[in-house]
Amino acid sequence: LPAMSTELLPSWGEGEAKAAIVDFVTAVTTEGSSDYVPPADRVATFDNDGTLWSEQPLYVQLAFALDRIRDLAGDHPEWRDTEPFKSVLAGDMAGVIATGKHGLAQILAASHTGMSSEEFSRIAADWIATARHPKSGKLYTSMIYQPMLELLDYLRKNGFEIYIVSGGGIEFMRPWAEKVYGIPPENVIGSSIRTRYELRDGQPVLMRLPEIDHIDDKEGKPVGINKFIGKRPIAAFGNSDGDFQMLEWTTSGEGRRLGLLIHHDDAEREVAYDRTSAIGKLDRGLDEAPERGWVIVSMKTDWTRIFPK
Amino acid sequence: LPAMSTELLPSWGEGEAKAAIVDFVTAVTTEGSSDYVPPADRVATFDNDGTLWSEQPLYVQLAFALDRIRDLAGDHPEWRDTEPFKSVLAGDMAGVIATGKHGLAQILAASHTGMSSEEFSRIAADWIATARHPKSGKLYTSMIYQPMLELLDYLRKNGFEIYIVSGGGIEFMRPWAEKVYGIPPENVIGSSIRTRYELRDGQPVLMRLPEIDHIDDKEGKPVGINKFIGKRPIAAFGNSDGDFQMLEWTTSGEGRRLGLLIHHDDAEREVAYDRTSAIGKLDRGLDEAPERGWVIVSMKTDWTRIFPK
Ligand SMILES: [Ca+2]
Ligand SMILES: [Ca+2]
Repeated sequence: LPAMSTELLPSWGEGEAKAAIVDFVTAVTTEGSSDYVPPADRVATFDNDGTLWSEQPLYVQLAFALDRIRDLAGDHPEWRDTEPFKSVLAGDMAGVIATGKHGLAQILAASHTGMSSEEFSRIAADWIATARHPKSGKLYTSMIYQPMLELLDYLRKNGFEIYIVSGGGIEFMRPWAEKVYGIPPENVIGSSIRTRYELRDGQPVLMRLPEIDHIDDKEGKPVGINKFIGKRPIAAFGNSDGDFQMLEWTTSGEGRRLGLLIHHDDAEREVAYDRTSAIGKLDRGLDEAPERGWVIVSMKTDWTRIFPK
Repeated sequence: LPAMSTELLPSWGEGEAKAAIVDFVTAVTTEGSSDYVPPADRVATFDNDGTLWSEQPLYVQLAFALDRIRDLAGDHPEWRDTEPFKSVLAGDMAGVIATGKHGLAQILAASHTGMSSEEFSRIAADWIATARHPKSGKLYTSMIYQPMLELLDYLRKNGFEIYIVSGGGIEFMRPWAEKVYGIPPENVIGSSIRTRYELRDGQPVLMRLPEIDHIDDKEGKPVGINKFIGKRPIAAFGNSDGDFQMLEWTTSGEGRRLGLLIHHDDAEREVAYDRTSAIGKLDRGLDEAPERGWVIVSMKTDWTRIFPK
C-alpha cells in the first residue's frame, strides 16, 4: 500500500487532504465494505473556476467576453460613446465594474447571444485555442491544476462518473472541456441562456437569446445537478462559497461522502485570496468545513506542484 | 450476414424498416467507411410515449396524476365541489377535458408539486410498480414495445449512447427508466417543473414548485437535447408530430443520419391512430417522411411481436 500511495496523486503531498481522498475512494470502491457504492452511483461533481483552473485576476469567461466586445467594436461605432462598451474599449476595468450588474448583462448579451449554439461553440473554441493569461502569458488551458487532473484521473480509474458543475456558461465550457479535462460535453453543467429552435435559410439552428435560463451557482448548483444528473453526488469539489450548497447537498446524503474545498493560499505559486475576494470568495466554507467534515486543501502545503509541466 | 440478420432484431420483420436500421448502424460503425462515426458521437434519442410504450387511451403520466388526485382527495374535501377535481373524482373524463389547459395545470400542480424531488421519485416508483393499464389489465411497464427493446439493445451493443427525450416529466420517468429500458437517470430528458433548494428541519431538499421550467415537446426537444447533451444526435426515434423537430434537427446534421417514426396502424394488436388523434397525432410527419428520408415503421407489418412475452 505505501508503494501504491507514492504513485497515486503524485502532485499531492502526503498530508491529511490526500489521505482523506484516498480513504474515501478506497472505502466506496471496496466490495463488501459497508461504505461500498456501486459504480452507477459514484457521481463526483467539480466546480471549474478556481477549482480546476485559475480564476484570477478575472474569470476566463469574462476575459473572453471583453475580447469579443473588442472584436465586434468595428461593427458598433455607437459603443465608443456608450457604457459599458466605452469602458471595455478603453481598457478601463474600474469603469466596467462601475456599470454594475446591468453593464455586465449588456456585455454578456453582446458577446454571448445572437448567434447559433454551433456558431458560439466555434467562437469559444477558436478563442480558447490562442487566448493567454494576462499575467503569466500562458494559454488559459495550461493554467489548470495538475493535482486536480490527477484527481480526475484517479476517480475515473475507480469507476466515478465526473461532472463539471460551474457557474460559468455551459456552452462556453463544452467546446474544450473534453480536450483539457477529459470531461465530455454531456457531463458539463453550467449557467445557461435560453435558446430558440428556428429555421435559417431552411436549416434548423438553435439561436442563443439574451435571456437567462439557469444560474448554476450557490442554490442553483444542487438544482442543476438534480435536473441534469438526477442523482445526488457522493463527492463534490469546489473552492468558494458558491459551492457551499453543492457540498451541503452532497455530504448530507446517506452513506460515506466527500466534500472538499480548495483554499487559494499560495501567493507565490498562484494567488492568495479567500474571505474578502470579489472573485472566488471563501468565507462561510472556511468557517463550517471542520464541523461538516469537509476537507480544506491548502494549495501551498498540500500541492507539490500547481500547474502541469 | 443473412445468418446474422435473423438473430438481429428478432421481433422486426424482414422489411425496409429493419433493413434501414441495420444499414445505418453498419455504416456508422464500420471503421474506414466514409459514414463512420466515432463512439462518442453515436448519440441516439428516443421519444417515450407511443415510441417505447403505449400511450393510449391516455398518457401513463396522466393516469398517474388522476390516481394521485384520488389518493389525496381525503385531505381535500373542497375538491368534491371544485373543478377539475370534481370531475376527476367522479371519473368523468369528458368533464376533466372540458376544464382545458387550466384544469390540467391544476391537476399537475396538485399531483406533481409541493413535495421534494426525492419524495416525488418514491411516489412515482411506488405507483408504477403496481399500476395497470385500463384495458389490458397489465402493468404499464409491460406495455412496452419488444421491438424497441431489441433496438435499444442493438444500438447499445454498437456503442451508441441512448437518451430518452420525452414530453413526459423528467422526474416521473427517471425512477423506473433504468429498470424498464436500461436507460439511467442521467440519460432521461423530459419536461420539468422548477425546483427550489431549501432546508427542511436542517436537511437540504429540492422542493418541486408549481412553475414550468421546460416543455420538452416539438421545438423544445432540440432545445432540451442541446442543453442536456450538447451534441446533435445521429439517430432519432419518435411516433408523433411532437417529434418532428427532433428528427429534423437530427437528420439535417452532416454525415449519415437516421430518423424513424413509429406508425400506430395495428388496431388488432395495439391501437390504430395517426392524423386526427388527440394523443400522439402524426400528420406532418407522415406527409414529409418520404422527402426527408425518414423511415416509417408500420407496427402492423414491420413488427412480428408488439409486447414482451
Ligand atoms: Ca469556483
Ligand atoms: Ca410520443
